[in-house]
Parts: sequence; structure tokens; C-alpha cells
Amino acid sequence: MSFFTSRWIDTPAAVTEVAEGLPRGFRAAGVAAGIKASGLPDVGLMVCDSPSVTSAARFTRSGTQSAPVLLCRERVALNAIRAVVVNSGNANAATGDRGLHDAASMQQLAADVSGVGDPAAVAVASTGVIGVPLPMEPVRAGIEAAGGALRADGESDFAQAIRTTDQFAKRVCLDIALSTGTVRLCAQAKGAGMISPGFATLLCFIQTDAVLAPETCELLLTVTVRRSFERMSVDGQLSTSDTVILQCSGESGVEVHQETEDELRFGEALDAVLRQLALRIARDGEGARRIGRVVVRGGDEEGVHRVARAVANSPLVKTALYGGDPNWGRIIQAVGMALPGTAPLPVDIAIEGVTVCSGGAYVPHDAAALAAAVAREEVEYEIGLPGEGAEAELYFSDLGHEYVTINADYTT
Amino acid sequence: MSFFTSRWIDTPAAVTEVAEGLPRGFRAAGVAAGIKASGLPDVGLMVCDSPSVTSAARFTRSGTQSAPVLLCRERVALNAIRAVVVNSGNANAATGDRGLHDAASMQQLAADVSGVGDPAAVAVASTGVIGVPLPMEPVRAGIEAAGGALRADGESDFAQAIRTTDQFAKRVCLDIALSTGTVRLCAQAKGAGMISPGFATLLCFIQTDAVLAPETCELLLTVTVRRSFERMSVDGQLSTSDTVILQCSGESGVEVHQETEDELRFGEALDAVLRQLALRIARDGEGARRIGRVVVRGGDEEGVHRVARAVANSPLVKTALYGGDPNWGRIIQAVGMALPGTAPLPVDIAIEGVTVCSGGAYVPHDAAALAAAVAREEVEYEIGLPGEGAEAELYFSDLGHEYVTINADYTT
Repeated sequence: MSFFTSRWIDTPAAVTEVAEGLPRGFRAAGVAAGIKASGLPDVGLMVCDSPSVTSAARFTRSGTQSAPVLLCRERVALNAIRAVVVNSGNANAATGDRGLHDAASMQQLAADVSGVGDPAAVAVASTGVIGVPLPMEPVRAGIEAAGGALRADGESDFAQAIRTTDQFAKRVCLDIALSTGTVRLCAQAKGAGMISPGFATLLCFIQTDAVLAPETCELLLTVTVRRSFERMSVDGQLSTSDTVILQCSGESGVEVHQETEDELRFGEALDAVLRQLALRIARDGEGARRIGRVVVRGGDEEGVHRVARAVANSPLVKTALYGGDPNWGRIIQAVGMALPGTAPLPVDIAIEGVTVCSGGAYVPHDAAALAAAVAREEVEYEIGLPGEGAEAELYFSDLGHEYVTINADYTT
Repeated sequence: MSFFTSRWIDTPAAVTEVAEGLPRGFRAAGVAAGIKASGLPDVGLMVCDSPSVTSAARFTRSGTQSAPVLLCRERVALNAIRAVVVNSGNANAATGDRGLHDAASMQQLAADVSGVGDPAAVAVASTGVIGVPLPMEPVRAGIEAAGGALRADGESDFAQAIRTTDQFAKRVCLDIALSTGTVRLCAQAKGAGMISPGFATLLCFIQTDAVLAPETCELLLTVTVRRSFERMSVDGQLSTSDTVILQCSGESGVEVHQETEDELRFGEALDAVLRQLALRIARDGEGARRIGRVVVRGGDEEGVHRVARAVANSPLVKTALYGGDPNWGRIIQAVGMALPGTAPLPVDIAIEGVTVCSGGAYVPHDAAALAAAVAREEVEYEIGLPGEGAEAELYFSDLGHEYVTINADYTT
């Protein structure tokens, strides 16, 4: 089955999916170090062996950033990240000075075992429970074991090691045909809960052997993250630990310059990959059955974004999505909440192309057809506000029993 | 059992609870008219027989206010409301011109059957499903039947008739000893879902036979709603239909003047009643097991309110509350989300008096004692931000399987 399963994403023309294999210049590993009580893999290492690596990174905007995020922002050369060391099972967040010290130890050890040497070229990420000190003995043993297990086809092990409550792994490898040759792009993502735009709670690591200048790298990551992870919400929560890193080894020798046809092709591939990963994460969504897409048009920039967020984060809308219930009254309720003081507001609402509300009032419609449409895996909501011009789009997961089960008993 | 069950509310000294009986000058009724498929009561009528009634009213700020709310705001003398007609089972929201016409028909019919005569003295409220036209035949028959069933002890029937997904009725009758005599205060509330501060989605009707000038009525309702319904969140949603109405018949002859000891006593009683009703609603919370109270201190006014709201509306915090899980990492995550760009933020967190986080980092604590504390019915979270002065308080319900069950299949 193709990686690009959503009707909302067009498969880029220049792209061929491959089963596995990192881009030239990369090795990865994932090992079980015993941080997770389950015994599942929990330490991952991704290394670029090329000293001429370029990179870009994005982090959560949370006021309570985890120690690894603080470390990355302060002590890593973000445009030249050689290695990434990750643990799951513990977020190393709200851990104070000890947490910062532990993150620095992870960074130094990963620099040593990967052969990178300089700790400033090593990014650190941690995901899992918050407020518990990192168990450094298994973490150290795990990083050492990962250092010995690095392989050019290790991205699947790496993807396993970064998971927490994810129901399935999220990764892809593909080749992109550019004008002067073919480059490979791989990505591994992790995320299920604490997902909200601005941006989503997740870890995502992307590798390519294309040659990208640091500023091209930065530009492409910024634009594509804005169109993907920043447009998705599982539960409206912003994590302490969100991290997205793009590394370019340059080992293919194929250059991608700004404002060229190749940049467009590469950008389209990266865009489609991140958007599909975002949808996978929303679909995972800690037990989600369905994903919704809300598109809000009209009004002004602030208004459309407020409305899209109110709809995507409404537990009433999300439980209706879960139940396959065409209860559009909850959509109009969320719209009214997002725009207080504007009553009576002439809102238009269509679900799966069926207009249910026009000018703020219900429209008679085929209820059976609508009920069948909202029982499918992807449900689209279109909202029209008075005025012209602005548009916002958000993907969101439903809210069901599995979310409660997973989250009512996560620490214990 | 006393009405005042929460440890967070002191029973006012001047108050004696009574089993039933409206204040002098009031009659009420509740009947089953067939709007609800369940056959449960769904039309209520509350009438003040005194032409010298004074009143005050508060409504939702939603941009998509229901027809009854629009009607009340435009065509009711809100400081002299004689009668209130309510239906449950249908919100008459997103129903356009027909909805406004139907609300006006309810108003006129209630004016007729209650003997009030002037429709401008009749408030209308509707609660239930959104976006479906009101079935006017049963509504009319219900209002006529209610008109014939009005009784001085009808407040219990009235309270039944205004319920939707409420698991239990919410009402109280009590006497307040003032310096020149005793007055009665009754209140009936409805609310379980679509509850969020600003203010909560609910209907609440309050009657007293004290003599209050319209401006005293307005002042007391504003202050007490701000301290009660505006401090509670079930699911962070703002309804199309929120309505709170205080009616004073004056039939006791006992006057409550502004800035007197009697005003203080009356205000304390009203405050305690509305706060306890708010807690009842949060406790009902569409299947809630527990309620939480979050108090945020420090920082500035905007900051403490953002943080309190982020904690109270976090599905991760709410599922942990449901699970009796002392996962305070989700508290610090919510704090960080509410205050982006402030990292590293030295947050203090205590749960049930146990300090778990200080200066942004975990504090070793008695995990067993904490686990036992969060398994009780009411759980208190205290959050300290850097700086002095500001304080915010919010009550919130948990998020559990019952919420999903109730909301995943509500229209059908």
C-alpha cells in the first residue's frame, strides 16, 4: 500500500516509494534500553557521517520546554546537526538542573559513540512521562548499544525506538527524481497525544542526501511544517518536547538551489511527506477512528484560525466524529464560541459537500446520505463566514473511548 | 443531606434549607409535552404573580446565539421579567427566521396562559439539540398544560422539565434570615455539557420574595455569576443558549438595600447557592467521576486566567483526573502551553497540598499519599507563577468514558 493514503494529499509526481534504506551518508539504530517498563525499544540514534551536513530544526514554543529542547536551543549548531539521540519513555521535562545535566550527558555520549566528536553537532530529544528524572544508567547503556548497532537500513529500528503511545510506526522512504539526479528522502515521526497546532506535539526526523544550503534547508522546513504539523490537532495540547529536524548529507551530489524547478519538486515531496505524517499522527490520535478536516473561508485571518481551532479542539465535535454522528449543531456552537459578541452570525456549514446550514439557519438535506458520509474514515467540514479572503485549514482526530483508556492511566 | 456538600463552599450562616416551596408570589410547573423522544418532562413555566417584580438576566456571549436568547435580548424588559417559559429537547438554535417566530409564539402563549398578558414581561429559554426546527404543536400544547398546572410547590417539576443530558436535578430552596425578616430563595439549574467559563452553558432560574431594586438585582447577579458559573468548565465549550435569570417578587416585604448588612447576607447566600450549583453541574459533567479546582497565583491577570483555563480544559489533565492518576506532568505541560515563549518558566505546582514541582522542576514527594488524595471526589491543584498579585480560580470536571458515550451518540 502506498504511503500516501489520504484523499487530501496528492502523491508528488517526481516521487517513487522504496521499502527501506536511509539516504547516502546516514546510519541509524534503535535499541531497547529498559527505560520503558514494557521492554520495547526506547533509545534511537541517527547519524550523518558527512562532516558537510546541513540541517534545520523546529521546537515547541511551550513555556515549559523540556531539558533536551532547552539544550538544543542553547548548545547545538542547528544548521549543522550531525547526530540525533532520542529516548522514549521519559520526556526529561520539569527536571530542573539535573535534567539539563542529563541531556548534556546524552549529547556527549552520543557524540562519542557516533564518531561525531563535537557535542554541539548532536541534537537530543526525549519523549514520554514528564516530571520524572531520567534513569541515566539504562540511557547510557542504550546509547552505547545504539552506537554499536548503527546501520544504513536502521531507520525502521530508529522509528520504533521513538514511539510512546503511538499505535503504529510512522515512517517513509522515497526517491525524488530531480533534474540532475535522484535523491532519497526518509522521515520517521512519533506522535499521538498532546497534539495541537502551534505546532503539534511530536518528534519528526527527516534525512536526505540532497545538497541543500542551510538557508534552503531552513526555508523548506519552515514552510512545510507550517502546512503540516501546524495544521493538526489531536487534543489541543502543546507539548514540552516537540522537535522536528531535517538533516541533509549532500552525499548524492545532487544540488537543490532556491527558486529552481528542483527546489519546487523537492519541496513538494517534503510537503506531501510531512502532511501525510501529520494525518497519520492525527489518525493514530491515541485510538482515533476517524480524522476530520475543517476548512474555514471568509472573515479575516484571525477569525478563520480561531474558528478552525475551536472546531478542531471541541470535544463535542470530536465525540460526534467518533460516533459517526452528523451533529452539525456542535459545529455552529463552536463557531459561535470562537466569535463571541457577533450574534446573529450568518454562518454557512457543509459536511462532506452537503450544505446543512446557510446564513446561520438549518437547510433541509438528505440526512441518510449525510449519515453515511460521516461514517467514513475522513470527514470534511467546510465553514463559510461573512466576508471574503481569509482561509484556514486544520486536521483533527476524533475523541473516543480509546483516548480515555490510554490517557486515564498513563503514568501508572 | 445538605445542599452544600463541597468543602470549597462554606454554608452561609444566615441560611436554613427547606425541602420545597417557592418564595411568596411565585408559581411553577413542568410537564411532558412530547418534544423529547424519551417522554420525559420538557416544558417548564415559572410565573411571578406580582406586577412589581424586579429581575436581572445574563446570556451567552456566543456569536451564534439561539433564537430565544436573541428574542430575550431584543424584546424582553430584562429588569421586570414576570414569567419564564422553557423547553428542553430542542435548543431552537440555528433555526433562522422560523426560530425567532417560534420563540415569539412561545413568549406570547406563555404571556396568555400565565395571566401576565404582556409578552415583553416573558423570557424564553430552550435547550437541547441545535439546528432542528422546534416542533411547535407539542410545544404549544405543553405551554397550555403548564399554564393549568402552575403551583406554589411546582419548582421540582419545573427543574425536571429543563433537564437534557443532566444525570440528576439541580435545585435548592432555602430561607435567609435578614434583619427585618426572613426571605426565601429558590434556584433551579440545568447543565452538563457545553460548559465553559465565559460563561458556562447552562440554564439557571432563581426566585426570591425579597424586595430588591432592579439595580441591586443586576449587581448581585453579575457578581455571583462571575464567581460561580464563569469559573467552571466541563468541556471548554460555550453554548448558544446560556441563560441565567433572577426574579424578585418582593412579596415578603423584606427589603434588601445596597451596601447594607442584609445585602451582604443575601449576597452570600446567592453566592453559595450559585457556586454549589456550578459544582453540581461540573460534577454532573456528562458522566464525571470527580471535580477539580485549580487556583493559579502570581504573574499577571491575563496570565493566571490563561493558565487556569488551559489546565481546566486540557483533555490530558481531565483524563488523569478521571483515572485518579497523579500525573502532574500534564499540569506543567498545560501551563507551558498557556504561556508560550517564556521557557524556562519557574512554575510551582501542588496537588492536594503536596508540592510536586518547584521552580519548574520535580520535587520528591510521598507518591502513595498523593495517589490516595487524587482518588477522592474533589481534587485541588495550586499553581504558582513568577511574580505577585494576580489570582484565578476554576472548577472543572473530568473526562471519562461516560462523556464519550453520552456525546458520541446524542442526536440519533
